[in-house]
Amino acid sequence: MRRYLALVATWLFSFLSLCADELTPVKYVFLFIGDGMSIPQRMTAEELSRINTGKGLAINAMEHQALTTTRSANSFITDSAASGTAIACGQKALNGAIGINPKGEKLQSIAKVAKDSGRKVGIITSVTLNHATPASFYGHNTSRGNYYELGLDLVESGFDFFGGGGIAEHNNKKSKNYVGDLYDIAKKKGYKVLRHDMSAFANLKPGCGKVIAVGGEVLPYKIDKKDSPSIADFTKKAIELLDNEKGFFIMVEGGKIDWMCHANDAATTMMEIIDMDNAVKVALEFAKKHANDTLVVVTGDHETGGLTMGFAGTGYNSYIERLNAQKCSRDAFDSDFKKLLKSKPECSFDDVAPLLTKAFGLDFTKGSKSALAVSKAELSELQKAFERSKGKSKSALSLAAAKCLNNKAGLSWSSNAHTALPVETSATGKHADAFKGSIDNTDIAKMLKLTVR
Amino acid sequence: MRRYLALVATWLFSFLSLCADELTPVKYVFLFIGDGMSIPQRMTAEELSRINTGKGLAINAMEHQALTTTRSANSFITDSAASGTAIACGQKALNGAIGINPKGEKLQSIAKVAKDSGRKVGIITSVTLNHATPASFYGHNTSRGNYYELGLDLVESGFDFFGGGGIAEHNNKKSKNYVGDLYDIAKKKGYKVLRHDMSAFANLKPGCGKVIAVGGEVLPYKIDKKDSPSIADFTKKAIELLDNEKGFFIMVEGGKIDWMCHANDAATTMMEIIDMDNAVKVALEFAKKHANDTLVVVTGDHETGGLTMGFAGTGYNSYIERLNAQKCSRDAFDSDFKKLLKSKPECSFDDVAPLLTKAFGLDFTKGSKSALAVSKAELSELQKAFERSKGKSKSALSLAAAKCLNNKAGLSWSSNAHTALPVETSATGKHADAFKGSIDNTDIAKMLKLTVR
Repeated sequence: MRRYLALVATWLFSFLSLCADELTPVKYVFLFIGDGMSIPQRMTAEELSRINTGKGLAINAMEHQALTTTRSANSFITDSAASGTAIACGQKALNGAIGINPKGEKLQSIAKVAKDSGRKVGIITSVTLNHATPASFYGHNTSRGNYYELGLDLVESGFDFFGGGGIAEHNNKKSKNYVGDLYDIAKKKGYKVLRHDMSAFANLKPGCGKVIAVGGEVLPYKIDKKDSPSIADFTKKAIELLDNEKGFFIMVEGGKIDWMCHANDAATTMMEIIDMDNAVKVALEFAKKHANDTLVVVTGDHETGGLTMGFAGTGYNSYIERLNAQKCSRDAFDSDFKKLLKSKPECSFDDVAPLLTKAFGLDFTKGSKSALAVSKAELSELQKAFERSKGKSKSALSLAAAKCLNNKAGLSWSSNAHTALPVETSATGKHADAFKGSIDNTDIAKMLKLTVR
Repeated sequence: MRRYLALVATWLFSFLSLCADELTPVKYVFLFIGDGMSIPQRMTAEELSRINTGKGLAINAMEHQALTTTRSANSFITDSAASGTAIACGQKALNGAIGINPKGEKLQSIAKVAKDSGRKVGIITSVTLNHATPASFYGHNTSRGNYYELGLDLVESGFDFFGGGGIAEHNNKKSKNYVGDLYDIAKKKGYKVLRHDMSAFANLKPGCGKVIAVGGEVLPYKIDKKDSPSIADFTKKAIELLDNEKGFFIMVEGGKIDWMCHANDAATTMMEIIDMDNAVKVALEFAKKHANDTLVVVTGDHETGGLTMGFAGTGYNSYIERLNAQKCSRDAFDSDFKKLLKSKPECSFDDVAPLLTKAFGLDFTKGSKSALAVSKAELSELQKAFERSKGKSKSALSLAAAKCLNNKAGLSWSSNAHTALPVETSATGKHADAFKGSIDNTDIAKMLKLTVR
């Protein structure tokens, strides 16, 4: 009996779906992009979160999941410009290109479609607003490095809310297209510009008009400043300001996940992912209240660093909890190290060892058997890196220290660039079931464009 | 209008599915397991296959795909015994344990459920028949290393077809449970035993009774012997012998994928995956002819080696085609190297360099600018490995050479053990849509047990 009912259900579903044939619009659409966040990043963060709080990440518990390939028009390994363009516009681009296809044709992004349909549009990132990923939603340029020109595209987009980091090279007088400071131009175009003024930001109310709200040129790493402005704060405010009867499209990028994967710093990366997860929770809460009108999609643009949840030296064992020993980002350590070098140019490794202990938890006590005790071979690597680091802004020493701790946790990195590993796309809400199986990053834009018409 | 039709379809589907509430049985069920085959392995093989033939793999084109977590009862990183047990029986096991849960309770496998329901059952592998993965479908033991005891479970299983490798330790008189040669016992239990007799095997006809067919103690690596018996041959024969009105369950393992991932040998790994893909194609062909009665599921049991499709030295570039330069497995090279050492114990690196060129394509020509030209640093690594290799059966030299070639292809390995990366499960046929989103390896058995009742 059950067998026949199932058959009837399947037939009816197929028939009626054929009649429906397309995704219908959704009032509220959220798209979260973890830059450099692929499956190993998500799963390591899940494990660390479970160890520390007993709970996993919201993104990993979303109803629908799809494996998502990321190759660009000209490379097995994509960069953030090509993948941003694919996710935002639905076509493959050359590595480095923003919002244009390999023929040089300008592409239309989900955000533009949403704006044209009468929705309000918000763009949020923890890095600069005209960095590759956010720029893919409003910009068109053969090179992601043309920050000033992408910033011009930003202020001319007419999008309703930009929040998080600032506009890079906003007053770049060397640009051949220079027409003034981009913040001034933004004001002339009707934007309320708030820079580093979080109390004014908190007081913004619906009806305040178009906003560019800069919490910091880039937002600080969460591991360094727990109470700093976060993308969750910007997501909350964007919802408050943009809610209207025609709905909205909000894109939120966790941009610094990628930076710390490039730096092979697992602990800082995991804190950034958990920070993005908190922003996703804001959207999921909103979705609960508007269950039939909301779609939340979370993806990554590529894998960064070649992170593996296993390492030759630890075999079948993992000690992810050891990441908790790290108390600051590589950048913060480098800054302290620089100060030490300035105050004591002839310092020795023994002078810097206490800083390494404080930052990465490494144990230099002779004869120590602790989990984070530094072996003779590790000590030799760290000492060599110390010598190479003098006078460098990004130190080989902090890289060696992060690597040492990561390996002790049972993790490894193979690259300081990206890799071709697919990412995971997660979805909850109306039409979330369209995100299943194995998809390509261009499919995300293709599907979302239908929902924001 | 379309919107309402879609809504009606969804409601009806939900309602009728609730009535149906369980997966109905399927006459023909295939389960393929690529040992050590996770997403990077599948995707590198896909890329290589596209480069060489213009076509991707059948497994990657299957209709439904699901991300699949693999952790064992006691470890973030599973071994093949615990994951085999999870996939075969639907419960988590301790690393090393076959067919029993952590309480020591014996678990029932999909194969046993299928057998009890009157189906015929086939177990095929490229490694030994009582290795961890195949043993999980009939065996029960606290240790995967108890090959003799697992072999006893095999001959007592009553399953209809065992094919591929042989029974390891079949005459292990040191076992405290020794009761005779397992092949003799199998014959007494009614098995037709064919060892290394592929022409007798080819002549087997339906109605011949229960079979144990050994193509080799383990099947040769495809890169070494293209015309050797393959799991595709065994799959074809199993279908021919086991087809009957009550249907069958056939499990096929590509067991040597894992071995060459442990060995960090990408080229040999990819040939093993393509070999398994050919076996899957046999099942997919059968499925086409029995579209409403067949389910084909393909999974991996874990990732092995920490393979990344990117490497620090090649940045954003990939040169997967360079794997084609490798002409034999690490094992085959080691065998040649051993012969050289025997005939010329005082041989120098210059004596072995031509063997490295022949096997791995490495170019030792001074001043060469070819893609596979060995750099000074690489040469130094290879020379050191040569010194370490003397007298070893698995040489550090072949490891260094494979690593050198893999890195030049833009690939890297982080471990000689497993990692915690999820695998991909693919499905085609009846109820294939049950395999979607994010599942756990135990879900595979839970779903398949319903289909083979």
